[in-house]
Amino acid sequence: MAVTLKDVAELAGVSRSAVSRTYTEGASVSAKTRKKVQEAAETLGYSPNALASSLTTGRTKMIGLVSNNFHNPIFLEVFDLFTKGLQGRGLRPLLVNLTDETDPEKSVRMLQQYSVDGVIVASSTLPESFAEAFRIAGVPVVHSFGRQVEKPTVNVLGIDNKQAGRLAAETLIARGYTRVGFLGGPQAATSTQDRMTGFLDTLQVHSNVGVTASFASAYSFEAGRAEMLRLMDAPLAEAYFCGDDVLSIGVLSALQSHGLSVPDDVGIIGLNDMEMAAWDNINLTTIHNPIAEIIASSVNLVADMVQDSAMTPQARLFACHVVERGTLRALKS
Amino acid sequence: MAVTLKDVAELAGVSRSAVSRTYTEGASVSAKTRKKVQEAAETLGYSPNALASSLTTGRTKMIGLVSNNFHNPIFLEVFDLFTKGLQGRGLRPLLVNLTDETDPEKSVRMLQQYSVDGVIVASSTLPESFAEAFRIAGVPVVHSFGRQVEKPTVNVLGIDNKQAGRLAAETLIARGYTRVGFLGGPQAATSTQDRMTGFLDTLQVHSNVGVTASFASAYSFEAGRAEMLRLMDAPLAEAYFCGDDVLSIGVLSALQSHGLSVPDDVGIIGLNDMEMAAWDNINLTTIHNPIAEIIASSVNLVADMVQDSAMTPQARLFACHVVERGTLRALKS
Repeated sequence: MAVTLKDVAELAGVSRSAVSRTYTEGASVSAKTRKKVQEAAETLGYSPNALASSLTTGRTKMIGLVSNNFHNPIFLEVFDLFTKGLQGRGLRPLLVNLTDETDPEKSVRMLQQYSVDGVIVASSTLPESFAEAFRIAGVPVVHSFGRQVEKPTVNVLGIDNKQAGRLAAETLIARGYTRVGFLGGPQAATSTQDRMTGFLDTLQVHSNVGVTASFASAYSFEAGRAEMLRLMDAPLAEAYFCGDDVLSIGVLSALQSHGLSVPDDVGIIGLNDMEMAAWDNINLTTIHNPIAEIIASSVNLVADMVQDSAMTPQARLFACHVVERGTLRALKS
Repeated sequence: MAVTLKDVAELAGVSRSAVSRTYTEGASVSAKTRKKVQEAAETLGYSPNALASSLTTGRTKMIGLVSNNFHNPIFLEVFDLFTKGLQGRGLRPLLVNLTDETDPEKSVRMLQQYSVDGVIVASSTLPESFAEAFRIAGVPVVHSFGRQVEKPTVNVLGIDNKQAGRLAAETLIARGYTRVGFLGGPQAATSTQDRMTGFLDTLQVHSNVGVTASFASAYSFEAGRAEMLRLMDAPLAEAYFCGDDVLSIGVLSALQSHGLSVPDDVGIIGLNDMEMAAWDNINLTTIHNPIAEIIASSVNLVADMVQDSAMTPQARLFACHVVERGTLRALKS
């Protein structure tokens, strides 16, 4: 057990309040009592810790890290980069798993109870109301991988999902596909909606290209696989823009299990460029999401907000680009 | 910004010490001062929070979750299960990323500064000294996925890695392989050493079976791939027991890139049975590591230790078993 204020009070033969006052800036305590407390504290190895000092400074150096998709492999990189980035600035992530949780108020109350200095909502599927709830509660908040809007009410950092959708469409058109499909993540996710909008908008001017759209129930392997198996009941498109990489791998799995070859029978382009996309067994052509840059900026921004709570919320856009691997046919020559 | 003790003191027109005493069990404060403080606290929405009350109770309800391999996909499941398990008991994980960190004292000092109630070291590669350092510092600690020893000095929960090695050897022998290899994780990891010992011990009594052993530099895709590419300079064994699943996938990738077919040319058996092992694109025969049970027990145990620090350290063993998929030849009939 850690040494507590009570232990120090008992050994020093003073009240707990006297110990508390000894370590409270500006509080009154006699020189004699202070000496007793300090000696007892030294004997027991007690020091006014980060949490105790937070009572006077109002800073705990803890940042709530809120996420809701712990089964998407991209989160290995996300957790690694966030923990290293925060640690590098002397901050600690208090991790909150919102899988199956729909009430933002609960996480706000919980993180307020721990007096976190700020919160990072790391999710492309949680609605804007989650980050917004922290802002309303007066907690500095950054929404990483959130929706890009004109006048954001909270800081939001990520790619322009509409641009990513346009990029996917242009990539498929350049390779001569004339029947293409959008196989998105959950329809309620803003990332899904925006990727689809960009994709369909670009295709609209190409009247020779037929397009379909459907949605998987989650950004997961199982959901991607299930949705592709369902699509196989009807004739398939020549190529699909899948909502993200893990969905793409589920789609590849479904195609493979039915003897269909990629890219000869069906082309696939994903989004994220997670480490696994480069594995030879997967070798996925995909759109690179610069998560390292987004996370570095998110950490800097939340740390700045802790110092200056009056900052105007910003939307910070990060450019994405196509990474060519083995799941699309070659460019038309 | 969160409301602080200082804000309450200013509004109430009393000293910070008076506010502190109002919320310190057994501390002396006049009825008049207490009333002023309580009114100001109510106006500002200040309540003595989890951290403030920890100063008297000595409990923060935070558990340090220490790990060092954020790039192994098994950790998606590990983080998901640990965060859900801890949250289910009203505890919060303070996440510590020890990648590239070799000094246990640093993490001990850091987590002590945050007065965590306990620590879970979740790693099969960190030396026993990491968990031991927390015990010496008087912090309740559980080592999940650690080495099983006769008289443990800290609580250790996991599979018997020697038994897993024996199981792998028996599985290969039953399928008639006569030249087999151990392709382990980092040689310094106790999990690697014990898996190899069990594997070699079992094969020793089978004089007709030839065996080789080598090591990858990490439990990672890249390390598994690199080690198999190196092994290809000489004649390969007929089947390999790979240190874990992500190593196995790297090995599969190396074999595939050289046109070798699994299981026709080379057989592979992994260890962990992470979600991805069941994906059709991977379809890995492997040894199931019951991480859900290990994590549930780890959470219960650390919570119990917070209540009763005098518990005798235990080694809790969990049984593992083979999951048959597509990377080994069929059983001899």
